[in-house]
Amino acid sequence: MKNFDINEDPHRRFNPLINEWVLVSPHRAKRPWQGQNETISTEELPKYDPTCYLCPGNVRANGMNNPQYESSFVFENDFAAMKQDEIIFEEDIKHTFFKAKPEQGISRVVCFSPRHDLTLPEMEIADIENIIRTWQKEYTDLGNIKFINHVQIFENKGSVMGCSNPHPHGQIWAQSSLPTQVEKTQNSLKLYYDKNQKTLLEDYVKAELKAGDRIVIENDHFVALVPFWAIWPYETMIISKRAVNKITNFTADESTAFAKILKELTTKYDNLFNTSFPYSSGIHQSPTDGLIHPEWHFHMHFYPPLLRSATVKKFMVGYEMLGESQRDITPEKSAEILRQLSDVHYKSLVK
Amino acid sequence: MKNFDINEDPHRRFNPLINEWVLVSPHRAKRPWQGQNETISTEELPKYDPTCYLCPGNVRANGMNNPQYESSFVFENDFAAMKQDEIIFEEDIKHTFFKAKPEQGISRVVCFSPRHDLTLPEMEIADIENIIRTWQKEYTDLGNIKFINHVQIFENKGSVMGCSNPHPHGQIWAQSSLPTQVEKTQNSLKLYYDKNQKTLLEDYVKAELKAGDRIVIENDHFVALVPFWAIWPYETMIISKRAVNKITNFTADESTAFAKILKELTTKYDNLFNTSFPYSSGIHQSPTDGLIHPEWHFHMHFYPPLLRSATVKKFMVGYEMLGESQRDITPEKSAEILRQLSDVHYKSLVK
Ligand SMILES: O=P(O)(O)O[C@H]1O[C@H](CO)[C@@H](O)[C@H](O)[C@H]1O
Ligand SMILES: O=P(O)(O)O[C@H]1O[C@H](CO)[C@@H](O)[C@H](O)[C@H]1O
Repeated sequence: MKNFDINEDPHRRFNPLINEWVLVSPHRAKRPWQGQNETISTEELPKYDPTCYLCPGNVRANGMNNPQYESSFVFENDFAAMKQDEIIFEEDIKHTFFKAKPEQGISRVVCFSPRHDLTLPEMEIADIENIIRTWQKEYTDLGNIKFINHVQIFENKGSVMGCSNPHPHGQIWAQSSLPTQVEKTQNSLKLYYDKNQKTLLEDYVKAELKAGDRIVIENDHFVALVPFWAIWPYETMIISKRAVNKITNFTADESTAFAKILKELTTKYDNLFNTSFPYSSGIHQSPTDGLIHPEWHFHMHFYPPLLRSATVKKFMVGYEMLGESQRDITPEKSAEILRQLSDVHYKSLVK
Repeated sequence: MKNFDINEDPHRRFNPLINEWVLVSPHRAKRPWQGQNETISTEELPKYDPTCYLCPGNVRANGMNNPQYESSFVFENDFAAMKQDEIIFEEDIKHTFFKAKPEQGISRVVCFSPRHDLTLPEMEIADIENIIRTWQKEYTDLGNIKFINHVQIFENKGSVMGCSNPHPHGQIWAQSSLPTQVEKTQNSLKLYYDKNQKTLLEDYVKAELKAGDRIVIENDHFVALVPFWAIWPYETMIISKRAVNKITNFTADESTAFAKILKELTTKYDNLFNTSFPYSSGIHQSPTDGLIHPEWHFHMHFYPPLLRSATVKKFMVGYEMLGESQRDITPEKSAEILRQLSDVHYKSLVK
């Protein structure tokens, strides 16, 4: 019998945002890897690609031409997962097992830059501030539509994350229901707020800043950290220090600070394996259901799949799908590695 | 305004096993795919591979030799995610955010056959019955260990599912806690049982057999179906018709019927895209915590990633990670496709 050492011994950690446990196996990163390697593109991208349906002036799948846009550009997804049509529906309450209901929604694509070859870490702060303004505008416009109660802003980056075009872009799926993960998070946030009259994340950020060992970046208004309950090897969250519940409530200083931390975090990510680091990221904030949501606290999740190198990812498969998420290095170790990486993008050093 | 058509209109469906919704976009399979293609191995495998650490007689990572096994063979995972060591631990109840506890467990690897080149659909029924006996023995042996309260039997098949060796094998992770997904399922099963004095899945199977349109295979003792709330394109469940709560309670007839449905389902899977079909699968059944669990009802989940072809999978990424799982064809359509596929393995036709 030995005393519990969180840095060495297998253990479970609790995620208070979605009320789930994760299995942590600190020793397991040592196992040899003989499995699948991802292919990475080392190809230099052109500034403009005549075959790219996102580049300025080019033709999209629906036959329409993109404008000669100069900063960001938003359009409706040509293959949207939801539609705006209003549907007549009578709920059949007898159905215990076959419960379904129509869902209305709007999907948009947000091009981050006219440049085909620029990703977030390589953009200027001013350009990222412009993306933030676009997100604010979309959140407001979509949120104001009567049937839209939630606006999900997200980005899939890299082919390993199902992204089919390297042109820098994100997506917005706005819809009438609260998606499952958001609803779970809201339930936890609300319980905490009702009990403490403070947001869960306000207290969490304070506790993390005091502990220190999971912090990756801190500036005046935001913290980037590896959450105590992270499931992906280099998962992070960007959390506002102030309990601001949506992106449209940022002060001008907060917008700039958010742009800076976005650039720094994604630069560190690219520097980790000297590659354009794949991830899915997304913003969790107040729903747009017309209610006041003091429990919500702006945060952005980054879920990157890579584990050991630019080509070896973590597989969330059998045990993880049937049992629970499992990770192979501790969040503290990941945070330490990210913290120590340079803020200067590796590509700018090579040139 | 039009009337809701579940075969055409975007909608959400409810999964009563884990209390979560899924977004269904029936029309979306039509979008063109320009993203990542998986590489598939078309290489003919040898019956015995001298470099395979799972083949009979060969040396494993820890230096030990596999026996000259003739049916199935079980050994402790050399790189286990959990350890058996008892750990002294005092819970720090002040920690709202940093909740962790040590976890004890045992991981085993189950080789399904001495043959390097045989997968489940290509095995004889008698061989599959032998695997079922091995699962029964492991469930009993591991379950009898004092600190083991749950035994998770699963298989990762194919490199796209993180499997690093094509030699047919599965895994067992046995541990002291109920993993997250199992606990969620148990909560739902228990609520239903307490209310109805029948298992949720007993009634669900009856409702599905009556509806008919999601059934893939039915035999005397088991049903294979695409659940109403499936998230993966060709996700299925094998459910026992009788409310049997663990694999060790199978009658001899049930074991044979289970072997048959396993062979038929995996044959249909391989025939879908004429490829060795990747998936993660696993059995959900009664925990081994010493309590009676009348609410549990034996079932096996299959989570296959492929969507359009042997090389194009469904990506559960941005929206799915931040929002909720989303699928591009209806479960009814998937079931129809699987149902119509032959029970004769495509390889046996070619030869
Ligand atoms: O233990 P294996 O087969 O090496 O590893 C595989 O299955 C495990 C259990 O689902 C996962 O944690 C790993 O990510 C995966 O690569
Ligand atoms: O809409 P896209 O970029 O074509 O598609 C990508 O993102 C979607 C939202 O996360 C996923 O549903 C798709 O599986 C993925 O390939």
